[in-house]
Amino acid sequence: MTHPTKQQLLETGLVMLLEHGYNDLGIQTLLKETGVPRGSFYHHFDSKEDFALRVVDLYMDRVHDALTACVRDESRPPLERVRGFFEMTKGQYRQDGYLGCMLGGLGQELSGVNDVFRLKIESCFKEIAGILAGCLEEACAQGDLPRDADCRAMADLLTDCWEGAALRSRLLRSPAPLEAMLDFYFGRVVSA
Amino acid sequence: MTHPTKQQLLETGLVMLLEHGYNDLGIQTLLKETGVPRGSFYHHFDSKEDFALRVVDLYMDRVHDALTACVRDESRPPLERVRGFFEMTKGQYRQDGYLGCMLGGLGQELSGVNDVFRLKIESCFKEIAGILAGCLEEACAQGDLPRDADCRAMADLLTDCWEGAALRSRLLRSPAPLEAMLDFYFGRVVSA
Repeated sequence: MTHPTKQQLLETGLVMLLEHGYNDLGIQTLLKETGVPRGSFYHHFDSKEDFALRVVDLYMDRVHDALTACVRDESRPPLERVRGFFEMTKGQYRQDGYLGCMLGGLGQELSGVNDVFRLKIESCFKEIAGILAGCLEEACAQGDLPRDADCRAMADLLTDCWEGAALRSRLLRSPAPLEAMLDFYFGRVVSA
Repeated sequence: MTHPTKQQLLETGLVMLLEHGYNDLGIQTLLKETGVPRGSFYHHFDSKEDFALRVVDLYMDRVHDALTACVRDESRPPLERVRGFFEMTKGQYRQDGYLGCMLGGLGQELSGVNDVFRLKIESCFKEIAGILAGCLEEACAQGDLPRDADCRAMADLLTDCWEGAALRSRLLRSPAPLEAMLDFYFGRVVSA
Protein backbone atom coordinates (compact mmCIF):
# COMPACT_ATOMS: atom_id res chain seq x y z
CA MET A 1 0.00 0.00 0.00
CA THR A 2 1.28 3.44 -0.95
CA HIS A 3 1.05 6.00 1.89
CA PRO A 4 -2.03 8.22 1.27
CA THR A 5 0.05 11.43 1.24
CA LYS A 6 2.50 9.93 -1.24
CA GLN A 7 -0.39 8.71 -3.40
CA GLN A 8 -2.00 12.16 -3.29
CA LEU A 9 1.26 13.81 -4.39
CA LEU A 10 1.65 11.33 -7.24
CA GLU A 11 -1.95 11.70 -8.45
CA THR A 12 -1.81 15.49 -8.40
CA GLY A 13 1.68 15.42 -9.90
CA LEU A 14 0.41 13.31 -12.79
CA VAL A 15 -2.19 15.92 -13.73
CA MET A 16 0.31 18.78 -13.32
CA LEU A 17 3.15 17.08 -15.23
CA LEU A 18 0.88 16.32 -18.17
CA GLU A 19 -0.04 19.98 -18.44
CA HIS A 20 3.18 21.73 -17.41
CA GLY A 21 5.94 19.28 -18.27
CA TYR A 22 8.87 18.81 -15.93
CA ASN A 23 10.78 22.08 -15.77
CA ASP A 24 7.67 24.24 -15.51
CA LEU A 25 6.31 22.14 -12.63
CA GLY A 26 6.91 23.92 -9.32
CA ILE A 27 7.18 21.74 -6.25
CA GLN A 28 5.95 24.73 -4.26
CA THR A 29 2.81 24.85 -6.43
CA LEU A 30 2.31 21.11 -5.97
CA LEU A 31 2.59 21.49 -2.20
CA LYS A 32 0.13 24.39 -2.18
CA GLU A 33 -2.29 22.43 -4.40
CA THR A 34 -2.16 19.37 -2.18
CA GLY A 35 -1.71 21.07 1.21
CA VAL A 36 1.24 18.77 1.90
CA PRO A 37 4.20 20.26 3.85
CA ARG A 38 7.63 20.36 2.20
CA GLY A 39 9.17 17.99 4.75
CA SER A 40 6.55 15.38 3.94
CA PHE A 41 7.37 15.62 0.21
CA TYR A 42 11.06 15.01 0.92
CA HIS A 43 10.17 12.18 3.26
CA HIS A 44 8.54 10.35 0.34
CA PHE A 45 10.81 11.48 -2.52
CA ASP A 46 14.54 12.12 -2.75
CA SER A 47 14.19 14.95 -5.24
CA LYS A 48 11.97 16.45 -7.92
CA GLU A 49 13.53 14.02 -10.41
CA ASP A 50 12.75 11.05 -8.17
CA PHE A 51 9.18 12.34 -7.80
CA ALA A 52 8.68 12.71 -11.56
CA LEU A 53 10.06 9.22 -12.19
CA ARG A 54 7.55 7.80 -9.71
CA VAL A 55 4.76 9.73 -11.47
CA VAL A 56 5.88 8.06 -14.71
CA ASP A 57 5.62 4.71 -12.89
CA LEU A 58 2.04 5.54 -11.85
CA TYR A 59 1.19 6.63 -15.40
CA MET A 60 2.70 3.42 -16.78
CA ASP A 61 0.84 1.27 -14.24
CA ARG A 62 -2.40 2.68 -15.63
CA VAL A 63 -1.33 2.25 -19.25
CA HIS A 64 -0.22 -1.29 -18.47
CA ASP A 65 -3.51 -2.17 -16.75
CA ALA A 66 -5.61 -0.77 -19.59
CA LEU A 67 -3.44 -2.43 -22.22
CA THR A 68 -3.38 -5.89 -20.66
CA ALA A 69 -7.16 -5.73 -20.03
CA CYS A 70 -7.66 -4.96 -23.75
CA VAL A 71 -5.28 -7.54 -25.20
CA ARG A 72 -6.62 -10.35 -22.98
CA ASP A 73 -10.24 -9.78 -24.01
CA GLU A 74 -10.71 -12.95 -26.04
CA SER A 75 -14.28 -12.05 -26.91
CA ARG A 76 -12.84 -9.81 -29.67
CA PRO A 77 -10.43 -10.58 -32.53
CA PRO A 78 -6.81 -9.58 -31.72
CA LEU A 79 -6.65 -6.57 -34.05
CA GLU A 80 -9.85 -5.17 -32.52
CA ARG A 81 -8.30 -5.55 -29.06
CA VAL A 82 -5.26 -3.57 -30.15
CA ARG A 83 -7.38 -0.83 -31.68
CA GLY A 84 -9.63 -0.94 -28.61
CA PHE A 85 -6.69 -0.01 -26.40
CA PHE A 86 -5.99 3.10 -28.44
CA GLU A 87 -9.68 4.01 -28.55
CA MET A 88 -9.70 3.75 -24.74
CA THR A 89 -6.57 5.90 -24.56
CA LYS A 90 -8.27 8.46 -26.80
CA GLY A 91 -11.12 8.56 -24.28
CA GLN A 92 -8.58 9.22 -21.52
CA TYR A 93 -7.04 12.06 -23.55
CA ARG A 94 -10.53 13.57 -23.93
CA GLN A 95 -10.98 13.48 -20.15
CA ASP A 96 -7.61 15.20 -19.76
CA GLY A 97 -8.58 17.95 -22.22
CA TYR A 98 -6.49 16.56 -25.11
CA LEU A 99 -3.10 17.15 -23.55
CA GLY A 100 -1.59 14.13 -25.30
CA CYS A 101 0.66 11.52 -23.73
CA MET A 102 2.88 12.18 -20.72
CA LEU A 103 5.53 9.77 -22.01
CA GLY A 104 5.84 11.71 -25.26
CA GLY A 105 5.84 15.02 -23.42
CA LEU A 106 8.56 14.13 -20.93
CA GLY A 107 10.48 12.18 -23.56
CA GLN A 108 10.67 15.22 -25.80
CA GLU A 109 11.37 17.73 -23.04
CA LEU A 110 14.07 15.85 -21.15
CA SER A 111 15.78 13.29 -23.35
CA GLY A 112 18.22 15.78 -24.87
CA VAL A 113 19.85 16.45 -21.51
CA ASN A 114 18.84 13.69 -19.10
CA ASP A 115 19.73 10.06 -19.79
CA VAL A 116 17.78 8.78 -16.78
CA PHE A 117 14.52 10.07 -18.28
CA ARG A 118 15.60 9.17 -21.81
CA LEU A 119 16.13 5.52 -20.89
CA LYS A 120 13.09 5.42 -18.58
CA ILE A 121 10.70 6.72 -21.24
CA GLU A 122 12.21 4.45 -23.89
CA SER A 123 11.73 1.47 -21.56
CA CYS A 124 8.04 2.44 -21.22
CA PHE A 125 7.55 2.51 -25.00
CA LYS A 126 9.43 -0.77 -25.33
CA GLU A 127 7.13 -2.38 -22.78
CA ILE A 128 3.98 -1.07 -24.47
CA ALA A 129 5.19 -2.17 -27.93
CA GLY A 130 6.11 -5.60 -26.54
CA ILE A 131 2.58 -6.20 -25.25
CA LEU A 132 1.05 -4.91 -28.49
CA ALA A 133 3.38 -7.22 -30.44
CA GLY A 134 2.09 -10.22 -28.51
CA CYS A 135 -1.48 -9.41 -29.56
CA LEU A 136 -0.39 -8.86 -33.17
CA GLU A 137 1.22 -12.33 -33.03
CA GLU A 138 -2.21 -13.71 -32.13
CA ALA A 139 -3.61 -11.94 -35.18
CA CYS A 140 -0.94 -13.65 -37.29
CA ALA A 141 -1.74 -17.03 -35.77
CA GLN A 142 -5.44 -16.52 -36.57
CA GLY A 143 -4.69 -15.48 -40.15
CA ASP A 144 -5.74 -11.82 -39.70
CA LEU A 145 -2.20 -10.71 -40.57
CA PRO A 146 0.34 -12.34 -42.89
CA ARG A 147 2.05 -15.28 -41.15
CA ASP A 148 5.48 -13.78 -41.75
CA ALA A 149 4.59 -10.30 -40.45
CA ASP A 150 7.25 -8.70 -38.23
CA CYS A 151 4.91 -8.08 -35.29
CA ARG A 152 7.52 -6.38 -33.15
CA ALA A 153 8.32 -3.87 -35.89
CA MET A 154 4.59 -3.32 -36.51
CA ALA A 155 4.00 -2.69 -32.81
CA ASP A 156 6.89 -0.19 -32.59
CA LEU A 157 5.54 1.60 -35.63
CA LEU A 158 2.05 1.79 -34.16
CA THR A 159 3.42 3.12 -30.88
CA ASP A 160 5.53 5.75 -32.65
CA CYS A 161 2.80 6.92 -35.03
CA TRP A 162 0.38 7.18 -32.11
CA GLU A 163 2.84 9.42 -30.26
CA GLY A 164 3.07 11.75 -33.25
CA ALA A 165 -0.71 11.91 -33.47
CA ALA A 166 -0.85 12.55 -29.70
CA LEU A 167 1.46 15.55 -30.12
CA ARG A 168 -0.75 16.97 -32.87
CA SER A 169 -3.83 16.28 -30.73
CA ARG A 170 -2.19 18.26 -27.92
CA LEU A 171 -1.46 21.16 -30.28
CA LEU A 172 -4.98 21.18 -31.73
CA ARG A 173 -6.82 20.11 -28.55
CA SER A 174 -8.64 17.68 -30.79
CA PRO A 175 -9.06 13.92 -31.26
CA ALA A 176 -8.97 14.20 -35.08
CA PRO A 177 -5.24 13.36 -35.55
CA LEU A 178 -5.65 10.28 -33.33
CA GLU A 179 -8.62 9.01 -35.34
CA ALA A 180 -6.91 9.64 -38.69
CA MET A 181 -3.83 7.76 -37.57
CA LEU A 182 -5.78 4.74 -36.30
CA ASP A 183 -7.88 4.59 -39.48
CA PHE A 184 -4.74 4.67 -41.60
CA TYR A 185 -2.81 2.12 -39.60
CA PHE A 186 -5.58 -0.43 -39.19
CA GLY A 187 -6.89 0.15 -42.70
CA ARG A 188 -3.49 -0.45 -44.27
CA VAL A 189 -2.28 -3.17 -41.93
CA VAL A 190 -5.37 -5.29 -42.31
CA SER A 191 -5.58 -4.78 -46.06
CA ALA A 192 -1.90 -5.69 -46.52
CA MET B 1 19.91 41.36 -43.53
CA THR B 2 19.84 40.12 -39.95
CA HIS B 3 22.39 41.82 -37.66
CA PRO B 4 25.40 39.45 -37.22
CA THR B 5 25.03 39.40 -33.42
CA LYS B 6 21.33 38.61 -33.69
CA GLN B 7 22.09 35.88 -36.25
CA GLN B 8 24.77 34.40 -33.98
CA LEU B 9 22.36 34.30 -31.04
CA LEU B 10 19.70 32.62 -33.18
CA GLU B 11 22.10 30.03 -34.63
CA THR B 12 23.52 29.11 -31.24
CA GLY B 13 20.03 29.21 -29.73
CA LEU B 14 18.81 26.74 -32.33
CA VAL B 15 21.43 24.17 -31.33
CA MET B 16 20.80 24.76 -27.61
CA LEU B 17 16.99 24.68 -27.84
CA LEU B 18 17.07 21.40 -29.74
CA GLU B 19 19.11 19.81 -26.99
CA HIS B 20 17.77 21.52 -23.86
CA GLY B 21 14.24 22.52 -24.73
CA TYR B 22 12.87 25.87 -23.62
CA ASN B 23 12.75 25.88 -19.83
CA ASP B 24 16.17 24.29 -19.41
CA LEU B 25 17.79 26.84 -21.74
CA GLY B 26 19.60 29.49 -19.73
CA ILE B 27 19.99 32.88 -21.37
CA GLN B 28 23.09 33.33 -19.21
CA THR B 29 24.56 30.15 -20.72
CA LEU B 30 23.68 31.35 -24.21
CA LEU B 31 25.42 34.68 -23.56
CA LYS B 32 28.51 32.94 -22.19
CA GLU B 33 28.55 30.55 -25.17
CA THR B 34 28.29 33.38 -27.69
CA GLY B 35 30.23 36.07 -25.80
CA VAL B 36 27.33 38.46 -26.37
CA PRO B 37 26.56 40.94 -23.56
CA ARG B 38 23.12 40.85 -21.92
CA GLY B 39 22.19 44.33 -23.13
CA SER B 40 22.81 43.29 -26.70
CA PHE B 41 20.49 40.29 -26.29
CA TYR B 42 17.70 42.53 -25.03
CA HIS B 43 18.37 45.01 -27.82
CA HIS B 44 17.53 42.28 -30.35
CA PHE B 45 14.85 40.37 -28.42
CA ASP B 46 12.06 41.47 -26.08
CA SER B 47 12.28 38.39 -23.90
CA LYS B 48 13.33 34.76 -23.79
CA GLU B 49 9.95 33.87 -25.31
CA ASP B 50 10.45 36.31 -28.17
CA PHE B 51 13.92 34.87 -28.72
CA ALA B 52 12.68 31.27 -28.83
CA LEU B 53 9.89 32.20 -31.26
CA ARG B 54 12.50 33.77 -33.58
CA VAL B 55 14.61 30.59 -33.31
CA VAL B 56 11.51 28.65 -34.40
CA ASP B 57 11.25 31.04 -37.38
CA LEU B 58 14.87 30.32 -38.30
CA TYR B 59 14.28 26.56 -37.95
CA MET B 60 11.15 26.83 -40.10
CA ASP B 61 12.98 28.89 -42.75
CA ARG B 62 15.40 26.01 -43.12
CA VAL B 63 12.67 23.37 -43.19
CA HIS B 64 10.76 25.46 -45.71
CA ASP B 65 13.81 25.89 -47.98
CA ALA B 66 14.67 22.19 -47.91
CA LEU B 67 11.03 21.19 -48.45
CA THR B 68 10.36 23.52 -51.37
CA ALA B 69 13.68 22.52 -53.02
CA CYS B 70 12.60 18.86 -52.77
CA VAL B 71 9.00 19.22 -53.97
CA ARG B 72 10.00 21.40 -56.95
CA ASP B 73 12.57 18.90 -58.24
CA GLU B 74 10.69 17.79 -61.34
CA SER B 75 13.44 15.35 -62.30
CA ARG B 76 11.88 12.91 -59.80
CA PRO B 77 8.32 11.57 -59.48
CA PRO B 78 6.28 13.45 -56.84
CA LEU B 79 6.24 10.66 -54.24
CA GLU B 80 10.02 10.35 -54.46
CA ARG B 81 10.32 14.10 -53.88
CA VAL B 82 8.21 13.83 -50.73
CA ARG B 83 10.23 10.91 -49.43
CA GLY B 84 13.41 12.72 -50.43
CA PHE B 85 12.54 15.58 -48.09
CA PHE B 86 12.25 13.22 -45.14
CA GLU B 87 15.45 11.42 -46.13
CA MET B 88 17.18 14.81 -46.16
CA THR B 89 15.68 15.63 -42.77
CA LYS B 90 16.96 12.30 -41.45
CA GLY B 91 20.44 13.35 -42.60
CA GLN B 92 20.03 16.60 -40.67
CA TYR B 93 18.99 14.67 -37.55
CA ARG B 94 22.14 12.55 -37.92
CA GLN B 95 24.27 15.70 -38.01
CA ASP B 96 22.49 16.91 -34.86
CA GLY B 97 23.17 13.62 -33.04
CA TYR B 98 19.60 12.32 -33.44
CA LEU B 99 17.93 14.86 -31.20
CA GLY B 100 14.71 14.75 -33.21
CA CYS B 101 12.66 17.73 -34.35
CA MET B 102 12.62 21.08 -32.55
CA LEU B 103 8.97 21.64 -33.46
CA GLY B 104 7.96 18.39 -31.79
CA GLY B 105 10.15 19.11 -28.79
CA LEU B 106 8.85 22.62 -28.13
CA GLY B 107 5.31 21.61 -29.07
CA GLN B 108 5.31 18.91 -26.42
CA GLU B 109 7.08 20.92 -23.76
CA LEU B 110 5.11 24.16 -24.00
CA SER B 111 1.70 23.60 -25.54
CA GLY B 112 0.07 22.56 -22.27
CA VAL B 113 0.66 25.98 -20.72
CA ASN B 114 1.50 28.44 -23.50
CA ASP B 115 -0.97 29.18 -26.30
CA VAL B 116 1.49 31.38 -28.19
CA PHE B 117 3.83 28.43 -28.70
CA ARG B 118 0.95 25.99 -29.16
CA LEU B 119 -0.48 28.00 -32.05
CA LYS B 120 2.95 28.84 -33.47
CA ILE B 121 4.08 25.20 -33.61
CA GLU B 122 0.71 24.10 -35.02
CA SER B 123 1.03 26.75 -37.75
CA CYS B 124 4.47 25.32 -38.64
CA PHE B 125 3.07 21.80 -39.01
CA LYS B 126 0.14 23.15 -41.01
CA GLU B 127 2.51 24.90 -43.39
CA ILE B 128 4.69 21.80 -43.83
CA ALA B 129 1.66 19.56 -44.39
CA GLY B 130 0.23 22.06 -46.88
CA ILE B 131 3.37 21.95 -49.04
CA LEU B 132 3.53 18.16 -48.81
CA ALA B 133 -0.15 17.99 -49.82
CA GLY B 134 0.61 19.99 -52.98
CA CYS B 135 3.21 17.44 -54.01
CA LEU B 136 0.84 14.56 -53.22
CA GLU B 137 -1.74 16.27 -55.48
CA GLU B 138 0.82 16.06 -58.28
CA ALA B 139 1.19 12.35 -57.55
CA CYS B 140 -2.61 12.01 -57.90
CA ALA B 141 -2.59 13.94 -61.17
CA GLN B 142 0.13 11.64 -62.52
CA GLY B 143 -1.76 8.52 -61.44
CA ASP B 144 0.73 7.50 -58.71
CA LEU B 145 -2.01 7.86 -56.09
CA PRO B 146 -5.77 7.26 -56.43
CA ARG B 147 -7.45 10.28 -58.12
CA ASP B 148 -9.80 10.69 -55.17
CA ALA B 149 -7.09 10.54 -52.48
CA ASP B 150 -7.48 13.11 -49.68
CA CYS B 151 -4.00 14.60 -50.08
CA ARG B 152 -4.35 17.04 -47.23
CA ALA B 153 -5.28 14.27 -44.81
CA MET B 154 -2.45 12.10 -46.14
CA ALA B 155 0.04 14.95 -45.67
CA ASP B 156 -1.11 15.61 -42.10
CA LEU B 157 -0.81 11.93 -41.34
CA LEU B 158 2.70 11.77 -42.78
CA THR B 159 3.73 14.82 -40.76
CA ASP B 160 2.28 13.40 -37.55
CA CYS B 161 3.75 9.91 -37.96
CA TRP B 162 7.14 11.45 -38.73
CA GLU B 163 6.99 13.43 -35.50
CA GLY B 164 6.30 10.28 -33.50
CA ALA B 165 9.22 8.54 -35.18
CA ALA B 166 11.39 11.61 -34.49
CA LEU B 167 10.58 11.36 -30.77
CA ARG B 168 11.57 7.69 -30.73
CA SER B 169 14.72 8.53 -32.70
CA ARG B 170 15.56 11.10 -30.00
CA LEU B 171 15.02 8.54 -27.25
CA LEU B 172 17.09 5.85 -28.99
CA ARG B 173 19.62 8.20 -30.65
CA SER B 174 19.02 6.17 -33.78
CA PRO B 175 17.61 6.61 -37.29
CA ALA B 176 15.83 3.22 -37.19
CA PRO B 177 12.35 4.51 -36.18
CA LEU B 178 12.51 7.13 -38.96
CA GLU B 179 13.37 4.53 -41.60
CA ALA B 180 10.69 2.10 -40.40
CA MET B 181 8.05 4.83 -40.51
CA LEU B 182 8.97 5.98 -44.03
CA ASP B 183 9.04 2.39 -45.34
CA PHE B 184 5.59 1.75 -43.88
CA TYR B 185 4.03 4.98 -45.09
CA PHE B 186 5.37 4.93 -48.63
CA GLY B 187 4.95 1.16 -48.92
CA ARG B 188 1.30 1.30 -47.90
CA VAL B 189 0.38 4.58 -49.57
CA VAL B 190 1.79 3.61 -52.93
CA SER B 191 0.37 0.09 -52.79
CA ALA B 192 -3.10 1.39 -51.84
